[in-house]
Amino acid sequence: EGYSPKPLEIRRQTPIVNELQSKPLITANPDDEIGDVAKRLVQNNINHLPVVDDDQKLLGIVTSWDIANAVAKGKTKLKDVMTKKVVIAREDEPVDIIARRIDKHEISGLPIIDKNNHVKGMITAEDISRLMCAKNREEGI
Amino acid sequence: EGYSPKPLEIRRQTPIVNELQSKPLITANPDDEIGDVAKRLVQNNINHLPVVDDDQKLLGIVTSWDIANAVAKGKTKLKDVMTKKVVIAREDEPVDIIARRIDKHEISGLPIIDKNNHVKGMITAEDISRLMCAKNREEGI
Ligand SMILES: C[S@@+](CC[C@H](N)C(=O)[O-])C[C@H]1O[C@@H](n2cnc3c(N)ncnc32)[C@H](O)[C@@H]1O
Repeated sequence: EGYSPKPLEIRRQTPIVNELQSKPLITANPDDEIGDVAKRLVQNNINHLPVVDDDQKLLGIVTSWDIANAVAKGKTKLKDVMTKKVVIAREDEPVDIIARRIDKHEISGLPIIDKNNHVKGMITAEDISRLMCAKNREEGI
Repeated sequence: EGYSPKPLEIRRQTPIVNELQSKPLITANPDDEIGDVAKRLVQNNINHLPVVDDDQKLLGIVTSWDIANAVAKGKTKLKDVMTKKVVIAREDEPVDIIARRIDKHEISGLPIIDKNNHVKGMITAEDISRLMCAKNREEGI
């Protein structure tokens, strides 16, 4: 494809993770039963829960897809289906970097981690899709 | 905040639904067992299935969130947890309109429906997040 210099390059600032509207933090524990985790997702109308230890340090992530996986495989304990190698977002990262990370890893949400490795919240593809539509609105598109 | 006229308004064309890369269409039937639907989601690594009749007409939608709901409520038949009032996307709609619809209804994906009301595929918040990051790349952001 090659490089073609552009006559005008627009550099637009995307917000950082921290600036997104934060939602209450709801978490899970590796020893939770699948049924309880399912209820927590459903009652809060969400798709992702960070799995943490008693000190709010990240141990994994569970999504409703993992619940479907537990059903498919007949597992009953969260620790048997949670994802332990977690792709994360840092509070000071620009949101477009997170969009690329979601794309690259084919995932739908990332736990937001602070400097002390504590879980602060979640950022999801829906948040980014929402942001994209807010931006378009601003730009009059 | 008020209205302030902008010196330069950039009108950018967003692609239409049809132009997004299409994935193979996988569907479910209202009489399916929850366990089978869970397996279909997991095996295909997806989160949404349009529920159709034998003629590929849309009857509902099921996501892994609904599987979690079935687990939470102890249901075993798809027809008991599928969503019957479905928010849809038309093939010729611009993607930014879909982004707003996803935002408005707090959902993560819409079945794409053709003129004859047949299901053609799914468009998800992840597809839109991916598109946003491709656009940023093009614009050198
Ligand atoms: C309200 S959302 C809550 C979780 C999260 N916000 C999400 O988007 O998956 C979950 C419910 O939305 C439903 N749903 C998903 N896509 C839909 C669509 N296009 N039209 C109507 N309902 C939909 C699912 O069937 C599920 O019952």
